[in-house]
Amino acid sequence: MQIDILSLFPEMFTGPMTSSIIGKAQERGIAKIELTDFRQFAHNKHGHVDDYPYGGGAGMLLQVQPIDEALQLINDRHPDTQKRVVLMDPAGESFNQAKAEELAQAEHLVFICGHYEGYDERIRNYVTDEISLGDYVLTGGELGAMVVIDATVRLLAETVGNEASITGDSFSTGLLEYPQYTRPREYKGMAVPEVLFSGDHGKIATWKAKEALRRTYERRPDLLDDYPLTDQDKQWLAEFAQSEEDESEEN
Amino acid sequence: MQIDILSLFPEMFTGPMTSSIIGKAQERGIAKIELTDFRQFAHNKHGHVDDYPYGGGAGMLLQVQPIDEALQLINDRHPDTQKRVVLMDPAGESFNQAKAEELAQAEHLVFICGHYEGYDERIRNYVTDEISLGDYVLTGGELGAMVVIDATVRLLAETVGNEASITGDSFSTGLLEYPQYTRPREYKGMAVPEVLFSGDHGKIATWKAKEALRRTYERRPDLLDDYPLTDQDKQWLAEFAQSEEDESEEN
Repeated sequence: MQIDILSLFPEMFTGPMTSSIIGKAQERGIAKIELTDFRQFAHNKHGHVDDYPYGGGAGMLLQVQPIDEALQLINDRHPDTQKRVVLMDPAGESFNQAKAEELAQAEHLVFICGHYEGYDERIRNYVTDEISLGDYVLTGGELGAMVVIDATVRLLAETVGNEASITGDSFSTGLLEYPQYTRPREYKGMAVPEVLFSGDHGKIATWKAKEALRRTYERRPDLLDDYPLTDQDKQWLAEFAQSEEDESEEN
Repeated sequence: MQIDILSLFPEMFTGPMTSSIIGKAQERGIAKIELTDFRQFAHNKHGHVDDYPYGGGAGMLLQVQPIDEALQLINDRHPDTQKRVVLMDPAGESFNQAKAEELAQAEHLVFICGHYEGYDERIRNYVTDEISLGDYVLTGGELGAMVVIDATVRLLAETVGNEASITGDSFSTGLLEYPQYTRPREYKGMAVPEVLFSGDHGKIATWKAKEALRRTYERRPDLLDDYPLTDQDKQWLAEFAQSEEDESEEN
């Protein structure tokens, strides 16, 4: 996968894009990340690529012309790739695991990272995807692009040693993950549940399924709306609801 | 604000935490960011801080002991601060602007960034906040911590030159931002709406209010559930719905 990033702060990407799985993916040739500082397309001696908003308002806006020319450069370099041009913006569609899976299919991703108060509206005419990380505001699009790239590149299965660690992820199964434990068996009075040492694989699998459902029920009941519940799941949910009721009666 | 980050990949933070507003905030003494590589608390010659999950399962889990000891170090260094200890985890509460505003009030934030498949469940006993960036899975907690720090530190008002640029943000007003334009007035046939050149401040303010509402209605109608609509807003919403209906009849 070819990944191009248009940014005024290419140095921000140094650490994140060379460490960890993203770095490994690049070493193995699975993903190639190129950075373009679009300040080079400023047509003024000060190197400005932003200007005041028409009609007044606070802050500065990123201009359309430098982005247009930067995208032309990417097109000239890679004339034959199928491109998805992603704008990181709080008004975009909320990023989620399904979107990461969709982007992982792409041949060439181009990210436009703005800074300043916002974008000239006409920049949206050049993009195929407007993505928001979530309902919060960041100082620029750079961290957002890194997050989307991280979530996407890790799905290019070869980059993760163990494919099973992806298919068991939160959101991949539709439920949150069950509680997990590793050594030591007891730490400062905190013990690992006994069932995990039973050696009974069926019993352990049942415990995991029930605890994943419990965690989802307690923390993210909205995820259950789209989850295909088994009869066993429904029985467990009734049990969780009952024990909540019992607890509230005790208080 | 004191910010401590526990991570196995401290080098990931180099670019993001020195550039842009976060870098400026540090220069001005508004925020101080310190990184701790908790691999130093591994009690084995290989420097491992992860181990296999009890009861089987894919991947490796971060152990509780190195985190416990790293947090003790932070406590020893800063015995008197009011700390919020944040675990980045997909099963945490979804990060949003209200949470950023809450964290911006804190005296001392400590972020635990995991890698590997997940955390030993007992690590949760040490944290005050479990935060998820959104419904997607990342290779580690580092990018998540950067995002939360970015959203939070920019709210420490002094770090942004122009306070008004925060109060007009998407999500701060409850609506998405209206479309914005800057020079040039026309670019490759794409023109800026005429109203912005009218010089009529009332007319421009009305246009902005209407377009912010329209964008929110079209892209994020869920945000309107909690938004205190004026009579004018309700009239505009009826108008948007009507023009949608007209369009669908034409097709």
